[in-house]
Amino acid sequence: MVSSELLVLLLDLAGTVAFAVYGALSAIRYTRLDLVGVLVLGSVTAMGGGAMRDAILGATPVNAVSDWRYPAAALFGALITFFAARWLARLEPAIVVFDALGLGFFAVSGAGTALAFGASPVGAVLLGMLTAVGGGTVRDIMLSRIPSILYQDLYATSALVGALIVVVCEEFGLDELVPATVAVLTAITIRLVAWRWKISAPGVPWRDSISGAD
Amino acid sequence: MVSSELLVLLLDLAGTVAFAVYGALSAIRYTRLDLVGVLVLGSVTAMGGGAMRDAILGATPVNAVSDWRYPAAALFGALITFFAARWLARLEPAIVVFDALGLGFFAVSGAGTALAFGASPVGAVLLGMLTAVGGGTVRDIMLSRIPSILYQDLYATSALVGALIVVVCEEFGLDELVPATVAVLTAITIRLVAWRWKISAPGVPWRDSISGAD
Amino acid sequence: MVSSELLVLLLDLAGTVAFAVYGALSAIRYTRLDLVGVLVLGSVTAMGGGAMRDAILGATPVNAVSDWRYPAAALFGALITFFAARWLARLEPAIVVFDALGLGFFAVSGAGTALAFGASPVGAVLLGMLTAVGGGTVRDIMLSRIPSILYQDLYATSALVGALIVVVCEEFGLDELVPATVAVLTAITIRLVAWRWKISAPGVPWRDSISGAD
Repeated sequence: MVSSELLVLLLDLAGTVAFAVYGALSAIRYTRLDLVGVLVLGSVTAMGGGAMRDAILGATPVNAVSDWRYPAAALFGALITFFAARWLARLEPAIVVFDALGLGFFAVSGAGTALAFGASPVGAVLLGMLTAVGGGTVRDIMLSRIPSILYQDLYATSALVGALIVVVCEEFGLDELVPATVAVLTAITIRLVAWRWKISAPGVPWRDSISGAD
Repeated sequence: MVSSELLVLLLDLAGTVAFAVYGALSAIRYTRLDLVGVLVLGSVTAMGGGAMRDAILGATPVNAVSDWRYPAAALFGALITFFAARWLARLEPAIVVFDALGLGFFAVSGAGTALAFGASPVGAVLLGMLTAVGGGTVRDIMLSRIPSILYQDLYATSALVGALIVVVCEEFGLDELVPATVAVLTAITIRLVAWRWKISAPGVPWRDSISGAD
Repeated sequence: MVSSELLVLLLDLAGTVAFAVYGALSAIRYTRLDLVGVLVLGSVTAMGGGAMRDAILGATPVNAVSDWRYPAAALFGALITFFAARWLARLEPAIVVFDALGLGFFAVSGAGTALAFGASPVGAVLLGMLTAVGGGTVRDIMLSRIPSILYQDLYATSALVGALIVVVCEEFGLDELVPATVAVLTAITIRLVAWRWKISAPGVPWRDSISGAD
């Protein structure tokens, strides 16, 4: 049987590689970067969310610096992408799937870690989201782009739902493995469905009358 | 008599709602966002400064995740704003007052928290400022805008003065309630006076000869 | 004989002044700022990297707020620059040398601090880099510029090499003073050589075929 710690570790490492590939690839597409820039942005995408979560929780030194497997996974993913960018860029759907995997894994492992370190249920949901979207947000900010979580295809929402499932099941005392699996699959599904059919969260009502006043 | 902890809590929660309203409203005015984006930016404005302060102090898990009242207050303020943006946007002066309240509350509660967790006096003043201006700065950065604290109407200065009063009074061993009240009122007054009469901090001397060299 | 703690402190304070001068000066050149903006950006450049490192390590309250000498050094450097910007701006080579000194000092002291607080060797190298480039990256982000570490003249690479030397020597149990000196000098040399002869890290292979797909 898979233990809870091992489950979180495996989700985290798989998410790290997936996010490093996605982060490095979108960095390459948006701007002209050298090797160092690609490694930095891949690593930031992959480890930024978890590092912020751990610093906020006081789970320090954060995993990304105390456990060599996290930076190794992130640098591996970014390095692969640096050399294989030409081929990976053709695989847009595959890339979105990678990103959805990272999103689902991180939302669930992030919420679980937050609960384990004493966050409130509401706080654990927010930290699950932060783990999932934080790294990509910092990458977008470093590229002077408005972070895609603010407007894109239920991106943050899918992380929110995944984290929420984990926290609610934990509150009801359920075993960890099944809810975690359901939560990961739900988050990935929402993200992919929203991407495929361009579903977005509702916009601000009557916004035009406001922006007109600006 | 109001205890010191309760005072800090009340200041913090009132500031959280005020900042969430202000943050969500300016986010709506600057760019086209969906519901998730408004909630994210309202929450970041309201809780970002305090979360950075607590992570820097090691006061972890930070209040925003260990105490459910902070995210509840932030989400409440942002949600109200999402639906009532049309009306709130007409109330520009009221909004500036809300923001000034948040600024004053956070500068004072932030400096007090910093002293309680072992910051030096200079450090406590800086952390009071960070608490007050940190969330709005992150919001501006996420919207790809130069943070308004860098150039706007003594914004950071009013937070600085509020935090300074708290720290100096603490050094002289004064009771906490009176200095805190004076500090909050002073910070709010400076902010509102600077806004009303467009008073700014002095610019760089002879800057034109420098930028010409750029 | 100079003790290890004193060495780290001296490197850190010298780096803080150098980075505050450099940070304030580039802030002044890029945009129109008032006194508060210059002090904020100088301080962020000088203390941001170390504060992020300490928050990540759990070395809290971070040095920048628990030890008054750090903010004093940062504000001193920024204030000098505010008033002397006209003269300093003529000294472009001197400014680059200041920046290289800060880079070398911070990479080495950052890696040493990380090892002392339980980071893995890989993590300590990354934290040495973060200490050296983190503050300037936040400054660039606040100015809505793509951080120069992502594309400029082996900037991050020189910090990487400096931190790597410290960590490898520590792994082999060498005395601290000699490796630290070698590491600082190596980092500074790489930075200055790369600046003088415009040497950059390699770009992404076949990038044009990718960006064309964007």
